[in-house]
Amino acid sequence: MPTEFVAQEMDHKGRFIRQKNRFTTPFGHREGQLPIEKHRYRLLVSYACPWAHRQLIVLKLLGLDQVISIGFVDPVRPTGLGRTDWAFTLDKDKKDPVLGIPYLSDIYLQTDPNYQGRFTVPAVVDLKTGKLVNNDYFNLTRYWETEWTSFHKIGAPDLYPKDYRQSIDELNEIIFEDVNNGVYQAGFATDQKVYEENFDKVFNRLEELEDRLSRTRYLLGNQITESDIRLYVSLVRFDIAYYNGFNLNWKRLVDFPNLWHYARDLYQIPAFKDTTHFDHIKKHYHLSATINPHQILPKGPDTSIWLEPHDRAKFEKKEN
Amino acid sequence: MPTEFVAQEMDHKGRFIRQKNRFTTPFGHREGQLPIEKHRYRLLVSYACPWAHRQLIVLKLLGLDQVISIGFVDPVRPTGLGRTDWAFTLDKDKKDPVLGIPYLSDIYLQTDPNYQGRFTVPAVVDLKTGKLVNNDYFNLTRYWETEWTSFHKIGAPDLYPKDYRQSIDELNEIIFEDVNNGVYQAGFATDQKVYEENFDKVFNRLEELEDRLSRTRYLLGNQITESDIRLYVSLVRFDIAYYNGFNLNWKRLVDFPNLWHYARDLYQIPAFKDTTHFDHIKKHYHLSATINPHQILPKGPDTSIWLEPHDRAKFEKKEN
Repeated sequence: MPTEFVAQEMDHKGRFIRQKNRFTTPFGHREGQLPIEKHRYRLLVSYACPWAHRQLIVLKLLGLDQVISIGFVDPVRPTGLGRTDWAFTLDKDKKDPVLGIPYLSDIYLQTDPNYQGRFTVPAVVDLKTGKLVNNDYFNLTRYWETEWTSFHKIGAPDLYPKDYRQSIDELNEIIFEDVNNGVYQAGFATDQKVYEENFDKVFNRLEELEDRLSRTRYLLGNQITESDIRLYVSLVRFDIAYYNGFNLNWKRLVDFPNLWHYARDLYQIPAFKDTTHFDHIKKHYHLSATINPHQILPKGPDTSIWLEPHDRAKFEKKEN
Repeated sequence: MPTEFVAQEMDHKGRFIRQKNRFTTPFGHREGQLPIEKHRYRLLVSYACPWAHRQLIVLKLLGLDQVISIGFVDPVRPTGLGRTDWAFTLDKDKKDPVLGIPYLSDIYLQTDPNYQGRFTVPAVVDLKTGKLVNNDYFNLTRYWETEWTSFHKIGAPDLYPKDYRQSIDELNEIIFEDVNNGVYQAGFATDQKVYEENFDKVFNRLEELEDRLSRTRYLLGNQITESDIRLYVSLVRFDIAYYNGFNLNWKRLVDFPNLWHYARDLYQIPAFKDTTHFDHIKKHYHLSATINPHQILPKGPDTSIWLEPHDRAKFEKKEN
C-alpha cells in the first residue's frame, strides 16, 4: 500500500493518521443494532490485510464461517482508476459472485454516495438490504466473539473470557498502537524523525512482548485470546512485508526466539494456517506500490520454516 | 544506485550488463605502462562502493596508503545534474583538495571530453599530467599487489602468492560473476524472471561458499588472499544494503554461520574495519535512489554485532 494511497491520512509533519471508520453500528440484540442472523451477512476481506485476516481467524476458530459468507478481493490493488480500491478480479467475470460488483468501492458508494474515505476491508454487507453495515475493523472481532455465541460451533474457544476482558482490552490498545498500526506509522512516515520514532516504538514493544512470552505460552496464560490473534496478524507479516517494505529492519521476527516460536505455535493451528496466505501478503505489500516501477516481487524469505516444530508447550503452566 | 542511473547498461530483456572500463593501461615497469612512482597518483574512491572499497583494503594491508593519496566522494550521489555523478561535497569548499574539482565527472571529461560512460570509482589520477589513467576496478588490486612491491610495508602479506594465482583467478571470476556483480544483476533487473535467476545464482553461490568455509579459515587456506577481499566487500554490504535494497531476501549474511563468522574475522582486522563505513554504505544504497521519494534512511540493522567474537581460529590448519 503505497504512501500516495493514504495521502489524505498524512499530517503536515509526515505522520500517518489512520482514518476513522464510517460504518460502526454494532451487532447485537438491542434496538438499532445489527441483528444476529445466519446467512444474512457477507464479509468482504483480503487475505493480505491484517485487519481482515483477524476476522477470518476468529470466524474460523468459532465456526462462524459456516453462517457468514465471505468474499475475497485481489491482493494487488487495481491501478489506473484514479482512486484507491480493491477488486474482485479473483472471481469469475471479475465480480463478487454474491454481490455482483467488480470493486469494493461499489458497495461503499451504493450505501453512501457521499462516502469520502478510503475503501477498506473488512467490510460487512447486509444481504437483506444490500448495504454495507459495518467496517469497524477494531471492534468487529468482539461482536463475533460475544454477540454471535448462539452460532458458535461446539467446543469453540472463548476468545474474550469475562475475567480477562480488562487485560485483553488494555493489551489490544497497546498492540494496536505499537504493533498493528505502529508498523504502518513507521512505513508510511515521510519524515526521518517520525519514521525513527515509530521504528523505536515497534521494536521496543516487540522486545517487551518477547520478554512477556518467556513466562506464558500465550499472552494471557494457557489460553488463546483475542489479543493473540491481534498480535499474530502483524507478526506473520513482519519478515515478508514490514522488514523490507516498511524499513523495519532492526531485527526480523525470527531473531526474537519467543515471539518466533509463539508465532509458529499459532500458525500451526488450522484456523491460523488456512487463513495465512503468504503469497497474497507478499503481492499486496510489494506490488501494490507505485515505488516498485518494474513490479519485481521479492522471492524470499523462506516461509517453509513456519512449519518447523516450536517449543511453546514448555511455557504451559499448570493451573492452580 | 537507482536503476535509471544504469539505463544505458540495461538490455532489452531487463538484464544489467555492466559497462566495460575505459581506462585500463596497467601499472608496470615496461614501456607504455603506468610508472610505479610514489606520491605521483591520487586514487578517487567512495567508501560506499565495493569496487573502490577493495582498493582501500589492499592499499592499507600493503602500506601503500602512505605513497598513494586518496580522495573521497560523498556516498550520496548529487541530484539535479542530469547525469550520474559523484561529488566532493565532504571536502572543504566542496572540491577535492588536491585536484580542485567538485565532481568526479570533471576528471573524466578533462581527460577525455568525449567520454560517454558512467563516471565510476575507483579512478586513478596521475598528478603529473592531471589525467585519469586507470579506472579498471577488476585488475587494479593486482597492480598494487604485484607491481608496487617496492613500496610495500615491511611484513605486508602476499595477497597474490605465486603458487595460488590460478586458484585465485578462478575464484575471483566466480566471486565477481555470482556475488560482486550478481547482487547488482538481481537488484537492477527489470524483469521478474531475470531477477529470480540472479537471486538463485547469488544464494546458490553463498551456500557453496558457506560449505567451503567449513573446511578452511580463509577461502584458500590459512592465509588471506585477494579473493577474500573480493568476497568481503560484498558480504559486508549484504544485510544493510542488498537484502532490502536489492530484494536479496532469502537469507541474510548472519544466517550463514561460516560466512558470518568469516566476515567478522576479516572485519576485525584494522585494514578492513577502518575502511568499512556502514553509514556511507547505507546512505549510498538507500538515499541515492529515486525510488525513495521521502529519502527515508532505514535505521537497521544493528551493525555493532560485527565486533562480536568469531570462531574462525578453529578452522586454522597446521601446515604439513
